Amino acid sequence: MGRVYNFSAGPAVLPEEVLRTAAAEIMDYHGCGQSVMEMSHRSKVFQGIIDEAEHDIRELMGIPDNYEVLFLQGGAYQQFAAVPMNLMKNGKAAYIITGQWAKKAWKEAKIYGDAVAVASSEDKTFTYIPDCSDLDIPEDADYVYICENNTIYGTKYHKLPNTKGHVLVADVSSCFLSEPVNVNDYGVIYGGVQKNVGPAGMVISIIRKDLIPEEPPVANTPTMLRWKTQADAHSLFNTPNCWDIYMCGLVFKWLKENGGLSAVKERNEKKAKLLYDYLDQSKLFHGTVVPADRSVMNVPFVTGNADMDAKFVAESSAYGLVNIKGHRSVGGMRASIYNAMPYEGVEALVNFMDKFEKENS
Amino acid sequence: MGRVYNFSAGPAVLPEEVLRTAAAEIMDYHGCGQSVMEMSHRSKVFQGIIDEAEHDIRELMGIPDNYEVLFLQGGAYQQFAAVPMNLMKNGKAAYIITGQWAKKAWKEAKIYGDAVAVASSEDKTFTYIPDCSDLDIPEDADYVYICENNTIYGTKYHKLPNTKGHVLVADVSSCFLSEPVNVNDYGVIYGGVQKNVGPAGMVISIIRKDLIPEEPPVANTPTMLRWKTQADAHSLFNTPNCWDIYMCGLVFKWLKENGGLSAVKERNEKKAKLLYDYLDQSKLFHGTVVPADRSVMNVPFVTGNADMDAKFVAESSAYGLVNIKGHRSVGGMRASIYNAMPYEGVEALVNFMDKFEKENS
Repeated sequence: MGRVYNFSAGPAVLPEEVLRTAAAEIMDYHGCGQSVMEMSHRSKVFQGIIDEAEHDIRELMGIPDNYEVLFLQGGAYQQFAAVPMNLMKNGKAAYIITGQWAKKAWKEAKIYGDAVAVASSEDKTFTYIPDCSDLDIPEDADYVYICENNTIYGTKYHKLPNTKGHVLVADVSSCFLSEPVNVNDYGVIYGGVQKNVGPAGMVISIIRKDLIPEEPPVANTPTMLRWKTQADAHSLFNTPNCWDIYMCGLVFKWLKENGGLSAVKERNEKKAKLLYDYLDQSKLFHGTVVPADRSVMNVPFVTGNADMDAKFVAESSAYGLVNIKGHRSVGGMRASIYNAMPYEGVEALVNFMDKFEKENS
Repeated sequence: MGRVYNFSAGPAVLPEEVLRTAAAEIMDYHGCGQSVMEMSHRSKVFQGIIDEAEHDIRELMGIPDNYEVLFLQGGAYQQFAAVPMNLMKNGKAAYIITGQWAKKAWKEAKIYGDAVAVASSEDKTFTYIPDCSDLDIPEDADYVYICENNTIYGTKYHKLPNTKGHVLVADVSSCFLSEPVNVNDYGVIYGGVQKNVGPAGMVISIIRKDLIPEEPPVANTPTMLRWKTQADAHSLFNTPNCWDIYMCGLVFKWLKENGGLSAVKERNEKKAKLLYDYLDQSKLFHGTVVPADRSVMNVPFVTGNADMDAKFVAESSAYGLVNIKGHRSVGGMRASIYNAMPYEGVEALVNFMDKFEKENS
């Protein structure tokens, strides 16, 4: 069918220009006679690739020098363990539960210490972000943890929690590089790259240097999960996912060439507005999230009728609008409209929804 | 310079046919309109890719049904931790130290329990494999650990140790799929794929099912390092390195199309013989390893003169024979001649060495 519009929540659509560059360079990177997949991670040419990737993400996000940028394996899930293993000096942390991923991170943290849920939106199936202006955070909590954009439910913190002076740790997997961010507001920002940045197989962790312990406070912390191991070796302690570092580097260049994070934010908001405006006037489809907490990246919607949902998913997929089925734990539909989804893709979706609505009412 | 002969120890040369297929399919995998790097790991098409990869490696290696095949992240180093965390029921294990990687695995195991070195070849800079016919293995050891092919030093176990009934665990990173193997001789076989199988960013662990604990014996084992987590989810507990699974799958097909592991063994031995025969008659170069323990994959050699070594590395590299410098901990030269290195590459190297020898004697 040719290239489709891919609304997958992750792994997800990549910029077509980036894929074309990767295809062109796959046999021979910049005349070195090797693929990036074949070159030693200790070679000068690969060192150039990783250095440039780090430089570009630092520039894009405005990451201050007192933060490390680490390219790691194991996905966000592995950081669910690394966060408490490295940070739980007092053995205590506060978690805000806004979806399945925050909940999984919280459960993982309980293996290593006293992880307290200080707020939750599970009472209404995670369709909103709780009021986080005055939470009951234990004074000796080592950090406050959030999942900033909730991929499954389509909510986003539009204002960060009041941590009352505690370190903020944020999983930003599904809103990574979607808008400008003030890195100083966070102790740790990390995200699996497979949603908004690059191919699956890497997590990027941005960590304030003074938070990296000489010796992890939790017993039996594996060497690979020690942030110090990875920071001291600048992500080259063992062989990293070289191809992913290269691909993410290409995406960073693409973002820079297209105006950086302010410009991508504007494009993202325009795409999201098109879809939400349609949903707000539709008599067949409706969004599932409290409007004030809507995500600009993941837009879940339903008809209220499971058969009608299934019909829509089947017909839109046949039309080339793919991976629009909602997460298995929620049902309905979800359009993930990450950085690499062009405006035309959202337009095609809205036009198809409108046509479907007319045919089915 | 066009495609070079790449003697890197890992990441390393990939079959050119495999790279060509990847290049051709990168924008649109089999007409689905998406790159493998963009598709959901929960999609039918990706499930087909991972199922086929598992099927093909099972067929190539003759892996019995009572073994799991897991596609994991974190490299062999992460398995250095996972092995003791999952297996140390009695808190004890026996390690045979035949190089830096075995030593690192041993050191990692000491974090979690009593890891005993029962043999070592460090006395002679790891240039041989110790006699392992009658080792003093503690009766209550949970396993005996080896690194089967030592990438840095160029040695290989041509006979497996007598474990006296204990479970054998082998890191096979640098000899993975280089020859037929009797999987039943092992409890666990694992290897980082970036040497002889695929691009960096994945480790494949082949584990006898009865060794996978319901609950790991070591406290604070992260969920991601629990083999049971990964086995229950068939490597899809969280988003795996989808691209690497795809690439390894292509390599498995390439091996099958080229006669499987018996045929690749024959080709590998022919390549190694060419290089070792040259070394054995050379007056300038000589191999560094006890002949009986030589690796077919990694061939270290020296002139005995550091300046001459450096001259050879520079000139061979300029000639398109690249990444031939020995490991930073050893010096000299090392030619890694993995499955994907064609006979012509080794021939070109030997001819160049011969010419260099004539010019410099």
